[in-house]
Amino acid sequence: MTTESYWCEHAWLGDGSVQTGLLIEVDSGAISSMRVVDSAPPGAAVLPGITLPGMANAHSHVFQRALRGRTEGAGNMHTTFWDWREQMYALAATIDPERMHRLARATFGEMLLAGITVVGEFHYLHHQAGGVPYHDSNEMGHAVLRAAAEAGIRITLLDTCYLHGGLASGGHVPLAAEQQRFGDGSARSWIERVSRIEPVGMARVGGAIHSVRAVDPDSIETIATWSWRVTAPLHAHLSEQPVENEQCLAVHGLSPTSLLARHGALSERFTAVHATHLEPGDLKQLARSDSTVCMCPTTERDLADGVGSARKMSAEGVRLALGSDSHAVIDPFEEARAMELDERLDKMVRGHHSPVDLLHAASAGGYESLGWPGGGRLDIGRLADFTTVSLDNPRMAGIPDADLLAGTIYAAGAADVTHVVVGGRLVVSDGHHTSIDVVGELRKAMR
Amino acid sequence: MTTESYWCEHAWLGDGSVQTGLLIEVDSGAISSMRVVDSAPPGAAVLPGITLPGMANAHSHVFQRALRGRTEGAGNMHTTFWDWREQMYALAATIDPERMHRLARATFGEMLLAGITVVGEFHYLHHQAGGVPYHDSNEMGHAVLRAAAEAGIRITLLDTCYLHGGLASGGHVPLAAEQQRFGDGSARSWIERVSRIEPVGMARVGGAIHSVRAVDPDSIETIATWSWRVTAPLHAHLSEQPVENEQCLAVHGLSPTSLLARHGALSERFTAVHATHLEPGDLKQLARSDSTVCMCPTTERDLADGVGSARKMSAEGVRLALGSDSHAVIDPFEEARAMELDERLDKMVRGHHSPVDLLHAASAGGYESLGWPGGGRLDIGRLADFTTVSLDNPRMAGIPDADLLAGTIYAAGAADVTHVVVGGRLVVSDGHHTSIDVVGELRKAMR
Repeated sequence: MTTESYWCEHAWLGDGSVQTGLLIEVDSGAISSMRVVDSAPPGAAVLPGITLPGMANAHSHVFQRALRGRTEGAGNMHTTFWDWREQMYALAATIDPERMHRLARATFGEMLLAGITVVGEFHYLHHQAGGVPYHDSNEMGHAVLRAAAEAGIRITLLDTCYLHGGLASGGHVPLAAEQQRFGDGSARSWIERVSRIEPVGMARVGGAIHSVRAVDPDSIETIATWSWRVTAPLHAHLSEQPVENEQCLAVHGLSPTSLLARHGALSERFTAVHATHLEPGDLKQLARSDSTVCMCPTTERDLADGVGSARKMSAEGVRLALGSDSHAVIDPFEEARAMELDERLDKMVRGHHSPVDLLHAASAGGYESLGWPGGGRLDIGRLADFTTVSLDNPRMAGIPDADLLAGTIYAAGAADVTHVVVGGRLVVSDGHHTSIDVVGELRKAMR
Repeated sequence: MTTESYWCEHAWLGDGSVQTGLLIEVDSGAISSMRVVDSAPPGAAVLPGITLPGMANAHSHVFQRALRGRTEGAGNMHTTFWDWREQMYALAATIDPERMHRLARATFGEMLLAGITVVGEFHYLHHQAGGVPYHDSNEMGHAVLRAAAEAGIRITLLDTCYLHGGLASGGHVPLAAEQQRFGDGSARSWIERVSRIEPVGMARVGGAIHSVRAVDPDSIETIATWSWRVTAPLHAHLSEQPVENEQCLAVHGLSPTSLLARHGALSERFTAVHATHLEPGDLKQLARSDSTVCMCPTTERDLADGVGSARKMSAEGVRLALGSDSHAVIDPFEEARAMELDERLDKMVRGHHSPVDLLHAASAGGYESLGWPGGGRLDIGRLADFTTVSLDNPRMAGIPDADLLAGTIYAAGAADVTHVVVGGRLVVSDGHHTSIDVVGELRKAMR
């Protein structure tokens, strides 16, 4: 790979301040040099506005992009998360590998346009209807990975183990008809299948326990052991809705967090997704194990999940990441400010997280959670993934230089991203993907 | 004024459905004909995407746009509404008529680009430092009105009476130094001054009681009587923070709503702004009087106000409108979805308001609240104010025609507005203001 160079009008270097005039050189996908330069030297690509490390989307169900706008109508009045899940299952039943590829490629394109440079795809749509494997038992996962490579986004495929249909008083219930496509029969079979995934491009493979509803304690232990052995990131949905806690306490006598902890799932490579309704003691276990919590604020709004306390998490030392989850919207700036603003509504206090902390959650926190510790910071030797937000729009115009970070977090949106570099390559330029017609592909993928 | 015609690819006609291919003709600022036509006839301006009635911003403090990004930094951790107010006062002290005009013109430009066609400017920055009137005692209000006329936005100047510095156990306290610019000494003097305002262009004048903190019961009665006499809209900040209720109950033995009701302020022309923390019985009084509540969800998030129950208001028959208030963001779609989504977080239920109800609050509800009952609906004889949202962007691409309304409310943003017509005149075309360099003016106005 040849050396490329990018000149940033403004760039955030990880502390509270913003550097004006920074030349970044890239070699083999990593930042090889950085220096302060007043204006762009010949041959350097100009990044006008403020350049940040690339945004990390640590929790995605990419196919759910096709639900956008479809669960908000007059037919959805006074419903809950569980009603929404039925609509989501009905969509999932229509997805074959070809459609998965189209949807993923277009939606990853949308993510790139929004400034997202790495995505964690929490992937459980594995098999054919009824649970029959495709000829390539990883055909779906491979379709996702191919889509990411074609779109030019970095990816961690969080292949998800989903064995049971839920928890009832007698323990786990079998997979319902619409869930059979998700299941591998056992954690051993899941590991066997996952070991055959062939990542391409800027990709790696991680694992996921769907939730304590879908995975029993023995299987949690098997998967946790696997993740230690292969040093893979491990994610799990955790306490998104209170009923999960109630069921888990009733059946296992433990909160979902305690159950995962007891069976070895928590570690510095573990990410709990949502963690909206924690029980007493859960937070300390997440902190002690150096786990990450990935909040998905726009989805938690959309699905009426309630407000988790990112403030308390951060005070206890739990690391934070962010995800757009159901893709009701795809906007890393909206996710970051929503984590703060929703807690303002809940606590009636402003300023739970500094702008630097919010940017960290939107970037480095996600990179770490997804097993790419080299990302999330503009520095020599780090991954050359970055995102430029224009100041040349009504949202950012007139914000003083001293407040550019706060302004970007609190006022900018996906539409204000103009340039995106992944692995040193310019993937979005002047607000357009350099090789994919994202809008056209989104239209086709939704049909 | 000559006849103009606009052809809408899709248009919302006020019920749950969307018409494809609609030709709207305009005469003297009003819609003179509408008919379904497959494609644009020669001479008609084409509005691609979905055209809605113009969005109404029923509560604005235009100068506060200069605070954007400036109260969110590391110096604002663990603060409250009242700390923010000090920062706002410090800004207010720097505003003279020339800067007010610049700020208002640029910010009204930003509103137009966001699809807002009418604004209610809740205006209390009347006088020079220390309360000395300008030579024209309405110089500030006239600067706002001139800015609106130049930007091409419809306006109701809600001239605000602000007499006292707050409520304490002994009753009202005098204006603090930084509040003296807001005061007219008495409700009578306020009326005298307001009667000399000369609206220009698409403007009208309404009144506002700043709050029960700033206006005593006798003065409320004087202002309410004035508003009946001149049939002007009357607005008031109401119960944004619980401490207002506590103080009002302690001093007057009544909730702020009851105090306003007892002194004649509530009526079909009255709008309560925020109404976040209502006391038992308040809602019924607002409903019985046919009052409107204007929620300002993005400001209520930003200022950690808490979540009011728009659901209960609407169930009781209270009319709803929306405002961007402090302009932390200016995005009528974000305001509309935030009213629903914040209540989802609070109640853990989805679907409090249908997309049609949310659009109504964002448009017709605000027009009515601001004394322009002819706006807020695409229909013959109505004001020719409309807003077009493009479908040609990653946020809206692929949303099925049947879900366009929900998609617009839940996924579109200010940046997706491409065309805006006010009083029959195209003010925004292809995402650009037709006569003002909004971004350039915002930059200059913030210096």
